[in-house]
Amino acid sequence: MMTVSEFEWSTQEKEIVQTALETAYRRETSSLVHLIREKSEEISQVGDLWRLNDFLSARRFDLDGKYDDRESEFLFVLARLVKEGWLGAEDLNGIAADKWAKISALTKIL
Amino acid sequence: MMTVSEFEWSTQEKEIVQTALETAYRRETSSLVHLIREKSEEISQVGDLWRLNDFLSARRFDLDGKYDDRESEFLFVLARLVKEGWLGAEDLNGIAADKWAKISALTKIL
Repeated sequence: MMTVSEFEWSTQEKEIVQTALETAYRRETSSLVHLIREKSEEISQVGDLWRLNDFLSARRFDLDGKYDDRESEFLFVLARLVKEGWLGAEDLNGIAADKWAKISALTKIL
Repeated sequence: MMTVSEFEWSTQEKEIVQTALETAYRRETSSLVHLIREKSEEISQVGDLWRLNDFLSARRFDLDGKYDDRESEFLFVLARLVKEGWLGAEDLNGIAADKWAKISALTKIL
């Protein structure tokens, strides 16, 4: 059985993944922008500022690590984005069935 | 000539300074809360979030160091707060004239 990092990706598949990552990043950061704008309306004292600061630092750290675009990480990264709802099957149209099956399986164990 | 950290502070003066520090902190953080609420209305993309994050981290670091309430630091801390406009002479009513003179002198060289 192939390990997850041993899958070979065609040029076309790589382009699909790259586009999907950009789409997911755009969706997730856009959602974060809306959330922060909402949260900031509730800021009334200095403690709220530091909580916002901590929240932003944590989300930034998370996002920095999450959109790893190395080929060896494709399946994990895509599975996580699917699980979190930033990507759907339609965004990955065109990748081979065995890869999609692996992604689906991973979403269940991540 | 006395060095800045050698001044003796009476119990009453210490109370005046403590109250002044609390007043300044309340004014400065309240102003920061307003500024951040204004800034956050202009957030439209993810880069704005990270700029806000960096700004908050810097202000937090600055505030953490600034309100040093050790007696040896009183004159420096008060001078900085006066210079920045968070305290006025009226907030320090009751401290000895030589200390106020030193604070005024420090505001000119800080």
